[in-house]
Order: sequence, then C-alpha cells, then structure tokens
Amino acid sequence: MDLATVNALHYEDFVNIFGNVVEKCPIITAAVWSRRPFVNFTALEAAISEFIDALPESGKEGILRCHPDLAGRDLQSGTLTRESLEEQTGAGMDALNSAEASRMARLNEEYKERFGFPFVICARMNDKRNILLQLSERCGNERAVERARGIQEVKKICHLRLQGLVLIDAPNKL
Amino acid sequence: MDLATVNALHYEDFVNIFGNVVEKCPIITAAVWSRRPFVNFTALEAAISEFIDALPESGKEGILRCHPDLAGRDLQSGTLTRESLEEQTGAGMDALNSAEASRMARLNEEYKERFGFPFVICARMNDKRNILLQLSERCGNERAVERARGIQEVKKICHLRLQGLVLIDAPNKL
Repeated sequence: MDLATVNALHYEDFVNIFGNVVEKCPIITAAVWSRRPFVNFTALEAAISEFIDALPESGKEGILRCHPDLAGRDLQSGTLTRESLEEQTGAGMDALNSAEASRMARLNEEYKERFGFPFVICARMNDKRNILLQLSERCGNERAVERARGIQEVKKICHLRLQGLVLIDAPNKL
Repeated sequence: MDLATVNALHYEDFVNIFGNVVEKCPIITAAVWSRRPFVNFTALEAAISEFIDALPESGKEGILRCHPDLAGRDLQSGTLTRESLEEQTGAGMDALNSAEASRMARLNEEYKERFGFPFVICARMNDKRNILLQLSERCGNERAVERARGIQEVKKICHLRLQGLVLIDAPNKL
C-alpha cells in the first residue's frame, strides 16, 4: 500500500489495517490517524513514536504489559496475535529444546518478577541464542533502563510491522 | 472480587480480567496496574479516569475510534467484544425494526463523517429510543464538545464494567 492510499483511509480501515503495529494497542494507531496526511513512511512512523514518547511512564509500562512472553503461554495455547506468532516462530521460539525452553521460562519469570512487565525484544532481529543471552543480561539492569529499552524494542517491532504494510518511499520521492 | 484480591493480582491476571473496561484499550488497564494498591473501588476507577484525562486530544479520539458502531457491522458479523455484545443487545440494538435500523445506520455514518470518530454512548443507561434521539441531537454538536462527551460516556461504560468485576466497598469500610 502506498502513502497516498494510507492517507485516504477512513479511520475504521486505518485501525483495521494498522491497529496492531504496536502489539494490542490499537488506541495508538487510532490516535495517530488524527495526524494524517503523512508526507512519507518516516512521518507515519514518527507520529507513532511521538505518541508513545508523550505517554507517562505508566503508559509505557502499559504498552510493555500488552506484550506476550517469548515462548510463553500464548504461543503454547495458540492465542498469540498473527504478527507475534510469525515473529516468534521466525526466531525459533516454537522449536526450543527442553533445556532452552526451561531456561527461557525461568528467565521470563525472573524478569517479570523483577520489573513488573515482560521482556520485550524484536524477535525478527534476533535468533534464539541471542534472545536467551539478552534476556539473561537484561535481567540485571535497572527498572528505568529496562522500561526504556523495552520501548526501543517496541519501536523496532513497529517499524518492521509497518514495513510489511506500507511501501517505503523511493529516495527520489522524498 | 474484593479490592484486596484485585490489589494482589499479577499484571497478567489484572490485564486479563480488567483489560476491556475501556473498550479495546488494555494499555489503560495495564498502565493503571502501576498505581496499585487501590484503597477502594473509587480509587481504581479514578486512576483509569486520570490516565484518560492526561492523554492528548488525539489519544482521546483514539479511544473513541476503538469503539464499535451501535447496531453496526460488528454486531451483525458477530465480532463485538463480549462486553459490547451484552451492552448492545441489552439496549435492543439487535432488535431494531427496519426503519430504526436504517435511521441508525444513516446517523452513524453522518456522525463519523462529521467528527472522525464513532458515536459513543453508555448503552446500558439508555434504551433504543433514547439512543436514536441522542445520536440525532449530538450530530449537531461541535467536534470538541463531542470528543469530551464521548469520553464521558466511555467513563460511564467503564464504571459499569468495573462494577461487574469488583465488589464496591461497603460504606463502613471506607
């Protein structure tokens, strides 16, 4: 879909198509519709980022808490969103051996217990070995550092989900 | 569920149980978990209201845009949330005669065209006659008035959804 088409969408279609670029937060997409027309892909993405950045810290934690665990209950029970399922299976989260699975489960619980929100990482930019390494390392961070880091990852996930939906402008069109 | 139980919930259970007190906006519930413990029902409700009030105007419009039309496509196709379905059927939205249905559809479109968000009203506090009357009248308001009015209705809906989930404190316990 090109930008002209995106800019012409009614809010209902806009929310239907882009509602999950931030996991389970259609309010963000729905809010950003007020900012159209977008001059290019970057402007659409920036509007989403700016909305997120303007939220209070509790709101940023709220975004993180809308994310499923990696290799967690939702993957096992088939209740992931379509986007998350693709991303998690792409990173091999459905193909952990038993040692990896128990290590992942233990570290996820440790992370959530420590921070009060789940470990969020852009699965499409990482493989399972790296995800486990990052999870283990990030468990040792401060809470504010992890909140900010989680939101950075949310934006990377959002970038790739948007890329799957909108044609990026050719450089000579900018 | 009493308040002590609510206050002891992990965020995952909290979001699972309360995630739709504001329609399709689990981020709000998930954010408000950061504010626990809640001293009483009113404090929980106030935390949600305050989060909503602190959003930029686009965020409030975003909340409204996450709401389905009354007697609209989602009701017809069976894709309403459980809460919306109960509320819409309770107000007779599934039992409009053909004149009422076409009037509702026409006014819904007029409202959305004019304001860029849907008509939101607490269906459980209204019957179908009153809903049609309000919809017709509110089409004539200013956009900012309707945005504020819609958010008032969101809070009424939220109040009743919360009441269905949490025991209200006995006066002698306050």
